[in-house]
Amino acid sequence: MTSQQPQGGVDRMAPFSEAFQAELLRLFQLRRDVRRFKRDPLPEAEILALLEAAHTAPSVGLSQPWRFVRVQSDAARAAVVASFERANAAASAAYADERAQLYRNLKLAGLREAPEHLLVCCHTDTAQGHGLGRATLPGTLRDSVLCAIQNLWLASRARGMAVGWISILDPEELREPLGLPPEWQWVAYLCMGWPEQERDHPELETAGWEHRRPLSEVLFTR
Amino acid sequence: MTSQQPQGGVDRMAPFSEAFQAELLRLFQLRRDVRRFKRDPLPEAEILALLEAAHTAPSVGLSQPWRFVRVQSDAARAAVVASFERANAAASAAYADERAQLYRNLKLAGLREAPEHLLVCCHTDTAQGHGLGRATLPGTLRDSVLCAIQNLWLASRARGMAVGWISILDPEELREPLGLPPEWQWVAYLCMGWPEQERDHPELETAGWEHRRPLSEVLFTR
Repeated sequence: MTSQQPQGGVDRMAPFSEAFQAELLRLFQLRRDVRRFKRDPLPEAEILALLEAAHTAPSVGLSQPWRFVRVQSDAARAAVVASFERANAAASAAYADERAQLYRNLKLAGLREAPEHLLVCCHTDTAQGHGLGRATLPGTLRDSVLCAIQNLWLASRARGMAVGWISILDPEELREPLGLPPEWQWVAYLCMGWPEQERDHPELETAGWEHRRPLSEVLFTR
Repeated sequence: MTSQQPQGGVDRMAPFSEAFQAELLRLFQLRRDVRRFKRDPLPEAEILALLEAAHTAPSVGLSQPWRFVRVQSDAARAAVVASFERANAAASAAYADERAQLYRNLKLAGLREAPEHLLVCCHTDTAQGHGLGRATLPGTLRDSVLCAIQNLWLASRARGMAVGWISILDPEELREPLGLPPEWQWVAYLCMGWPEQERDHPELETAGWEHRRPLSEVLFTR
């Protein structure tokens, strides 16, 4: 890589090794949205290491708007399971024929097995950052939270741990059971744990729900 | 790490090496939002490698809703520069006293120097994914795009290249100059290039705009 740096430039932002770059690409490719967990707990130190990795994410104006909620109580988890079951039944009913059959065959959550539940919220009214960079694009606050989630996802896979993002939930009905302040916007409910198995391909692809398209289909020039 | 896997479990989702895990954390910590670029071009093969890294991101229902627009024409870039200047003047006027002085001293864009401009959009009406996982949380489409951006950001830093996210822009006034279809939602305008220098700390922190808080301030249990 160094040979591709501009001639005469002082190489002060040194590239990582080529071996690391190759491993990083392999990490991107192996990261999966996991639904099948073992019940074994995650070590506490590992969970905190993942949260620290998330906490290094970029944020608009250095606002750090992510709020991590470890959902541990039986009552809170039961409310989440119930919400999933309602939303899943409604979603299932919206498909017809073969697609409905495909939908019913998918495993879309691992809420009962996953030892760790993490709700990630966005503080939509934080004073931190002094509003910088969000006047014309207020969505950048939430965007920052997503960067943190992707860090956590990658760090998890690097450590052999699995993350599954459950979006078949009704955030409004869970606001009270989870005790969320009004200024915390729901972003992502994550199941975390040890995976049952490695998968080379997304489960949605293996199940025939959807297939991935090449980069050329989403790349444009102006 | 292997010793922390559950007893008796088949280690089929193998962790990456501890050396890689440590380097990954260093990558997270060194990734910066860069504003000061050299004018030297990025090699075409490198740009495509970064986009391929982004394209491995997770997406709700395998929808792959990201749309990458390489902004290259003089006319398009001039429109972006003009929009930044208007939005920046308006934002600057919103601060008072010392904070206004601080704001005016920040370098908030590198639009003229950065050799590569990339607009990342979200196709908000894509059929890909068959609507899975976005009935109760439609924001998950845009969320997927952010995961792709964070991949690109990390891959760039690993290769010694810099990314700067410019959010002081008015996306509506740029829709026509950039030829964006109505179903493409503006997500992020990224400047890319070789950085002038390495920075151990965010420039906003060095400039006294904001400082980072510890994880403990954003971590909660329910």
